[in-house]
Amino acid sequence: MHAPLAEQSPVGHNASNPAITSIEIHAPAPLRHPPPELIDALRARFGSQFSTAAALCEQHGRDESALDAPPPAAVLFALSSADVVDAVRLIKPYRVPLIPFGAGSSLEGHLLAVQGGISLDLSGMRQIVAIDTQDMTATVQSGVTRKQLNAELQSSGMFFPIDPGADATLGGMCATRASGTNAVRYGTMRENVLALEVVTAQGELIRTGTRAKKSAAGYDLTRLLIGSEGTLGVITEVTVKLHPLPEAVMAAICSFDQLADAVNATIAIIQYGVPIARCELLDANTVRIVNAQAHLGLREGPMLLMEFHGSPLGVKEQIETVQAITAEHAGHAFEWAETPEARSRLWAARHNAYISGVQSRPGCRAITTDTCVPISRLADALLDSVKDVQEAGLPYFLVGHVGDGNFHIAYLIDPDDAKERALAERLSAQLVHRALRLDGTCSGEHGVGLHKMDFLIEEAGAATVDVMRTIKRALDPDNILNPGKIFTL
Amino acid sequence: MHAPLAEQSPVGHNASNPAITSIEIHAPAPLRHPPPELIDALRARFGSQFSTAAALCEQHGRDESALDAPPPAAVLFALSSADVVDAVRLIKPYRVPLIPFGAGSSLEGHLLAVQGGISLDLSGMRQIVAIDTQDMTATVQSGVTRKQLNAELQSSGMFFPIDPGADATLGGMCATRASGTNAVRYGTMRENVLALEVVTAQGELIRTGTRAKKSAAGYDLTRLLIGSEGTLGVITEVTVKLHPLPEAVMAAICSFDQLADAVNATIAIIQYGVPIARCELLDANTVRIVNAQAHLGLREGPMLLMEFHGSPLGVKEQIETVQAITAEHAGHAFEWAETPEARSRLWAARHNAYISGVQSRPGCRAITTDTCVPISRLADALLDSVKDVQEAGLPYFLVGHVGDGNFHIAYLIDPDDAKERALAERLSAQLVHRALRLDGTCSGEHGVGLHKMDFLIEEAGAATVDVMRTIKRALDPDNILNPGKIFTL
Repeated sequence: MHAPLAEQSPVGHNASNPAITSIEIHAPAPLRHPPPELIDALRARFGSQFSTAAALCEQHGRDESALDAPPPAAVLFALSSADVVDAVRLIKPYRVPLIPFGAGSSLEGHLLAVQGGISLDLSGMRQIVAIDTQDMTATVQSGVTRKQLNAELQSSGMFFPIDPGADATLGGMCATRASGTNAVRYGTMRENVLALEVVTAQGELIRTGTRAKKSAAGYDLTRLLIGSEGTLGVITEVTVKLHPLPEAVMAAICSFDQLADAVNATIAIIQYGVPIARCELLDANTVRIVNAQAHLGLREGPMLLMEFHGSPLGVKEQIETVQAITAEHAGHAFEWAETPEARSRLWAARHNAYISGVQSRPGCRAITTDTCVPISRLADALLDSVKDVQEAGLPYFLVGHVGDGNFHIAYLIDPDDAKERALAERLSAQLVHRALRLDGTCSGEHGVGLHKMDFLIEEAGAATVDVMRTIKRALDPDNILNPGKIFTL
Repeated sequence: MHAPLAEQSPVGHNASNPAITSIEIHAPAPLRHPPPELIDALRARFGSQFSTAAALCEQHGRDESALDAPPPAAVLFALSSADVVDAVRLIKPYRVPLIPFGAGSSLEGHLLAVQGGISLDLSGMRQIVAIDTQDMTATVQSGVTRKQLNAELQSSGMFFPIDPGADATLGGMCATRASGTNAVRYGTMRENVLALEVVTAQGELIRTGTRAKKSAAGYDLTRLLIGSEGTLGVITEVTVKLHPLPEAVMAAICSFDQLADAVNATIAIIQYGVPIARCELLDANTVRIVNAQAHLGLREGPMLLMEFHGSPLGVKEQIETVQAITAEHAGHAFEWAETPEARSRLWAARHNAYISGVQSRPGCRAITTDTCVPISRLADALLDSVKDVQEAGLPYFLVGHVGDGNFHIAYLIDPDDAKERALAERLSAQLVHRALRLDGTCSGEHGVGLHKMDFLIEEAGAATVDVMRTIKRALDPDNILNPGKIFTL
């Protein structure tokens, strides 16, 4: 499924970097692979933590996007912050790219070695450094995944809510400013990270932030690094806020006949101020796909999946309000799930959507959109975009964190069919233009990576992106940290 | 009260900048006042919006801190973003400092012209650009104050919760990453700003962020600018989140015999997860001062002032929980305030504390601390610090947003008494060191300004502050935007 496209259709925009065919390369840059003396130095320092084995390199040169590039020249498995410091210091004189790698679940090409270099795998940095039950904070190494952290918290009465779907590492989630299903209630990584430990492009180990809940002490480097996609520093440790496990949790499905009704019900729920914990949308086509792949037997219409957290009384209040709102929008009766097992079954529909979607068309790749708009504009952004893809006749699925105004249409393309790819890109661009006209953003949670660079310029303006470039050049003058992502230099 | 100290004791650390006596100047920089041809050019462009009148310059050369410096050479009253763009472009070739000025309520010397230059008064930019009731957002020019915005929102069912005490401008509140009494429930400016319009040091007008609730599109320049204290750009427009006016609001005072009980009750309230909207502490000494100045007749013991927001049922639940917790910590019965008038009277105690404190010692100046610690460390940070100032015998007052772990001791010094100033600075340093040992920050909400530069280095580390410096140098290579604040270059 991930065989480099290049081998199939070596068109190439640039002789120095011929393999990338699936995206337009802006200002192509030459590959900067490590010279033999650097390979030797890394072997000497890191022993078996360093490898140039082709299978490993290939595995580290791709992600969940529909993009391909030649693999990195080597993989370095960091086990400590000191490893990262030494890696940066050894590599820096050679100006070789270093691409931080967590769980490999990026959807935007963040992990691709588009300028060559070395993949820095942080997934072995899995230490829980400290959990403070009194202040509800946890400090973990950046390779710790969200599921690992929540398993560790199981008997503590607390949890870490950010759930982007994939079992991503916390470092990776910082790098892409991840959010996911619970963000409508608990916020994103932007709101839930207190402090970071980071290795700069100079090989300095620095700390940003403290465990205090708020601070006005100097530039907010924590927030600058969150969402910097590995281009400004390598995150080695993360201190996050934890949240008390809610006393009561109820999950429910509400099915609709019309997509517009499901969307308008969502808008009303949010505008009413219901502190809903999850509010996810699947359209009828996606429910059909999930049913076919995962045999869930769900009613095949547009569907809201919801979860309510709070005190028993508070949850009851929320549910009554939401039932009244969905009834006003021609929603069918709720299907309930109260026990953890029943909730898991219900959420399987949502969590299986991506896999089911991709599996529904064997051999396909998914080109995923990630727009987010102010809640009042959700219907305008979503309904026409679904109509567009349906009229175009391209297979797709639609899932959405609609409570946040964020949704994903994934266009399921035959990677060998240039016309299909072009059609998907055209639909994607139409959708983004629509979202930007509605005061929205091209990326709610996946990041810019390789695929949304033009959209970023369109959204923020060239002068704003120039400010980003200026910061990148100042902090990483040799352009060694994940070069070629977010913007070209 | 604000007569420049320099006139009284012109000691001076540096011949080029002789007037600053109240703080140690790190790497003193020469004054960069505008040459006559620049004055002429500014007069030609701005007419009566530009002035070199001594009284205006003096008024714009000070703030609410205990620091003094020579006044700026001129004041420019901007009325539009275009004015700010032109001001920067005219000034840039001359490398003359430009110091953004909002309401003048900084407590850390942010507005002082320590390197000379021109005060850029934005308080005339008072236009409400847009209020969106459906998405609960407002876009305003940066000179709009929080009270003006809330007056505008009066019949909308929404409000803007951030309340730093002073009627600050939203631009100023962005610049210092302000928070205040409601932050324990609603967050700080960091959490409540969606987007900015900013004039860069190059004189480019840029926009950061959109009205979407979340975004992963590129570097988080919005958060980088929030808390940058006017050193990275001049904020000209701010888009903020609004919040629904709570259905029910109740305010209450709880008095204690022991300060430790009031503090430990606060810790318990927060650790229990009560979504309290305000949780403020005054110690017995401060209640005495407020009573004497404002004749409020409050019981003269340590006191928590609280406010509860929510549905009638939710507020009732919160109050029952908090009453049980305060009773466990030997709190006296609540004194209630339900009507807006009764609440105003009760909150007068808190809002009068600063004025009453300063007035309690005629002719004094206040040296204010601003530490914030994780909630479990609040007692450790606060109780010993109060003991220290009481043992030292220096007049002081104590107020605190203790629900956030943030409190202020204001040392009330005779500005002519060098020994008192030194004693206050020693006590302040002791308190900061204690807070840093407890995983806290030297500034919860006032910013670094002139007074907390050393503390910032101690807190974040020299390498982290170097990253901030690198960003400043890259974005403002001529060092024209509020130079000499946060760190020295």
